Amino acid sequence: METMTTSLDDVRTAINHASAVAEAWAETPRSARAAGLEAVADGLEQARDVLISLAEEETGLPSGRLSAELTRTTFQLKFFGDLIREGTYLDVVIDHADDRWPAGAPRADIRRYNLPIGPVLVFSASNFPFAFSVAGGDTASALAAGCPVVVKAHPGHPQLSEMQAEIVRNALESAVGLAGVFSIIYGQDAGVAAVTDPSIKAVSFTGSYQVGRMLYDLAMSRDEPIPFYGELGSTNPVFVTEAAAHTRGGAILEEFAAAFTLGGGQYCTKPGMLIVPRGESMAEQLVGFPLPSPGRLLTSTVAAKFTDRLAILGASDGVEVLIDGRTDDPMFPRATVLKTELGAVIANPSLSEECFGPASLIVEYADFSEVLEFARRLRGQLAVGVQGAQPDAQAEALLPIVARVAGRVVWNAWPPGVSVTYAQNHGGPYPSTTSALFTAVGSGALARFVRPVAFQNVPDALLPDELQEANPLSLPRRVDGAPE
Amino acid sequence: METMTTSLDDVRTAINHASAVAEAWAETPRSARAAGLEAVADGLEQARDVLISLAEEETGLPSGRLSAELTRTTFQLKFFGDLIREGTYLDVVIDHADDRWPAGAPRADIRRYNLPIGPVLVFSASNFPFAFSVAGGDTASALAAGCPVVVKAHPGHPQLSEMQAEIVRNALESAVGLAGVFSIIYGQDAGVAAVTDPSIKAVSFTGSYQVGRMLYDLAMSRDEPIPFYGELGSTNPVFVTEAAAHTRGGAILEEFAAAFTLGGGQYCTKPGMLIVPRGESMAEQLVGFPLPSPGRLLTSTVAAKFTDRLAILGASDGVEVLIDGRTDDPMFPRATVLKTELGAVIANPSLSEECFGPASLIVEYADFSEVLEFARRLRGQLAVGVQGAQPDAQAEALLPIVARVAGRVVWNAWPPGVSVTYAQNHGGPYPSTTSALFTAVGSGALARFVRPVAFQNVPDALLPDELQEANPLSLPRRVDGAPE
Repeated sequence: METMTTSLDDVRTAINHASAVAEAWAETPRSARAAGLEAVADGLEQARDVLISLAEEETGLPSGRLSAELTRTTFQLKFFGDLIREGTYLDVVIDHADDRWPAGAPRADIRRYNLPIGPVLVFSASNFPFAFSVAGGDTASALAAGCPVVVKAHPGHPQLSEMQAEIVRNALESAVGLAGVFSIIYGQDAGVAAVTDPSIKAVSFTGSYQVGRMLYDLAMSRDEPIPFYGELGSTNPVFVTEAAAHTRGGAILEEFAAAFTLGGGQYCTKPGMLIVPRGESMAEQLVGFPLPSPGRLLTSTVAAKFTDRLAILGASDGVEVLIDGRTDDPMFPRATVLKTELGAVIANPSLSEECFGPASLIVEYADFSEVLEFARRLRGQLAVGVQGAQPDAQAEALLPIVARVAGRVVWNAWPPGVSVTYAQNHGGPYPSTTSALFTAVGSGALARFVRPVAFQNVPDALLPDELQEANPLSLPRRVDGAPE
Repeated sequence: METMTTSLDDVRTAINHASAVAEAWAETPRSARAAGLEAVADGLEQARDVLISLAEEETGLPSGRLSAELTRTTFQLKFFGDLIREGTYLDVVIDHADDRWPAGAPRADIRRYNLPIGPVLVFSASNFPFAFSVAGGDTASALAAGCPVVVKAHPGHPQLSEMQAEIVRNALESAVGLAGVFSIIYGQDAGVAAVTDPSIKAVSFTGSYQVGRMLYDLAMSRDEPIPFYGELGSTNPVFVTEAAAHTRGGAILEEFAAAFTLGGGQYCTKPGMLIVPRGESMAEQLVGFPLPSPGRLLTSTVAAKFTDRLAILGASDGVEVLIDGRTDDPMFPRATVLKTELGAVIANPSLSEECFGPASLIVEYADFSEVLEFARRLRGQLAVGVQGAQPDAQAEALLPIVARVAGRVVWNAWPPGVSVTYAQNHGGPYPSTTSALFTAVGSGALARFVRPVAFQNVPDALLPDELQEANPLSLPRRVDGAPE
């Protein structure tokens, strides 16, 4: 694989272009920005076959999955287009002047809405070469919000990145007539330089804890610190109550086997731990299954890290290796199953850190009160699953506890599969993300790239159209405290 | 003044109590939390006279201003109570399952709302001993959101802090029956220890750039970084167009003189620069006015910093001291007026840094296109004012530019006076705050202390009441993409 790198001069040029066009893109009407996103979606659809075969070659992911992911990606571009046309994300709030406002002084006329935050740097991920890559959710939501985007390509799929970038650039230029709204850069040094460039106003990142934290620290130590939306790592434990294990343990295991090997176990939402009652021999049952083949890993870096992590886990106190997935070719491991007791995980919390790849740890508990205590102390997770029955006192006690440590709580289903919807939350307390207040997927993702500005006492003719009294853009608004 | 300090053991105890009660406070019904806030407001009102005379003594601020500030503070507590009763801040979004959802895979039933983020540390400010202190906006919004609060008292008004803390504690305990939801700590070391305590989940701060950035860096370097909502400093320039200067220059100057000396010039929104056309001799006119007496400064630290800053400004190239406010007693300066040319500020941006106290810099411009360029390059501001006419091409060009660097744009009025309303935005790009995405005042302030969590496929009976299909709490919601 040829290593592509962008020179620091070219990084600076790309960011200068983004900065120079920021005002024009912010002021491009929302309908035109939406049209630009739709043009990108159309461009990707037109190149579907070649994109998918290139993705297959570069990532090793199966074409069926890639095809669904591309559909999701083009849907997502249009979804954000629809959202900005509708305009709720602008959060228009209007307070008329009120001499009797009881706050110690008269209230002036105050009107607020959201402005784009400025050029955004997007680090793309290896495991979703469409949905979390060049034209994925971060790019789509930042562009939709009115922010120019500089993508740092993931080295795992450089040709695919370049082809997607070409499509995005051309589509935006021909639909909107602005150059520099989107660009792509390659290489670690380029990424580091971009994070510290004063013209970049926010960063989104999907990747490993180590790299994510390093970039996060860089962003925070700038003269002007900027929001850093990092998705760093999550184990996504799934808890099985005694009732669930007893009534449908076999079915749960079958689904679990599919879930933790899906996409080679290379999902940020892979269930990395299954917490089961001791009496049902679920680990032993799982080993008896014909486990799915995980396929090729994404990159040699992923393979090396996976091998290392398995060695550490396998050598840890109290951990039993039921199926050692290591093979002669580290790029093609088998599904790996480890087993331990809840007490061992409580004694050694590093066991519950993410293992990226097709492995999962079955954790047996003897007493559900220990499970509740364990759940209470979990570090932040993107998702936590609960497999329960109804009624089920254990599940009832567990659900509110896991809601406090997770971005998403999944009932009798599995964490992978983060649908692009209005209510979605793909986020969670640290270290699953660096900012638990925001989602990376779904309509809420727009909020990462806008900031409020209020206008006080400004005459109607001088207000932005979005805030004018007659509501010429027909935006949803709150007026004097109530929805209009 | 006696120096009060809290031992590190007592800091740890206070935070442990906050952490222990966090679940119970989060689960206290919103109506009961609102009642708790109202009890605090009532307690403050009952002690109004003694609070105001103590505040007068400790801060030197005049009683009329303090009385209005206390009214604002008790209003604010009730305002946040009303907001949580109403529930928009919970941002309830419901997506029903949809097999035909065109995102590449069927959509599960997904429901999202906001949960409190956990114990919040509030650094109170010296210049608003009620509204930005013990029971001020940060405390009120964090408590309303369901977060326990630990206040780090400002050393400028220790007795007043203790008295307010006593009122808050008693009111919450008797109204809600929970101890540990609120506590107060004293001393720099206590504050630093609290910022780095793992049980603290967010920090709010109002104060100087130096201290704010130091605490911000501490919060970011934790094993688990946390949101830090810091308000650090802002010059709040006010631009006067040629038409405005020509038609009502005298009136503008009269208002300006009141605005920059208000509260001793110790407002975070004090207009620190007035940018005026050269031809109108506005600086000389101002010097001819009988300028208001700023009164006593808040603390000897403020006085020492003000004296130092004036010395630096006065000695800067191109700066002319029209009225030197320094007197024999640094606690009682006079209003200080400095004058320079726009070119000097462009050449030396440090001239436009905040000078906390009763001083302002008159900046003369010769050419309005230079003003636009200067505005474009301004660092982040809490507020920017524009004094214009109608029609006024200069104002029209300037307004969208200043909106990009400010949290609030004020037309023909003055930045001080941040009303507590729905649309208010008291925030702004760095360095005016450390998080331009949030406001510290108004209904949006609640958003700083909650985070989203989504529930996927969870049966109605197991969902939190807030998310149940029948909407038993009658909350505002978005369902399948549209407001209900």
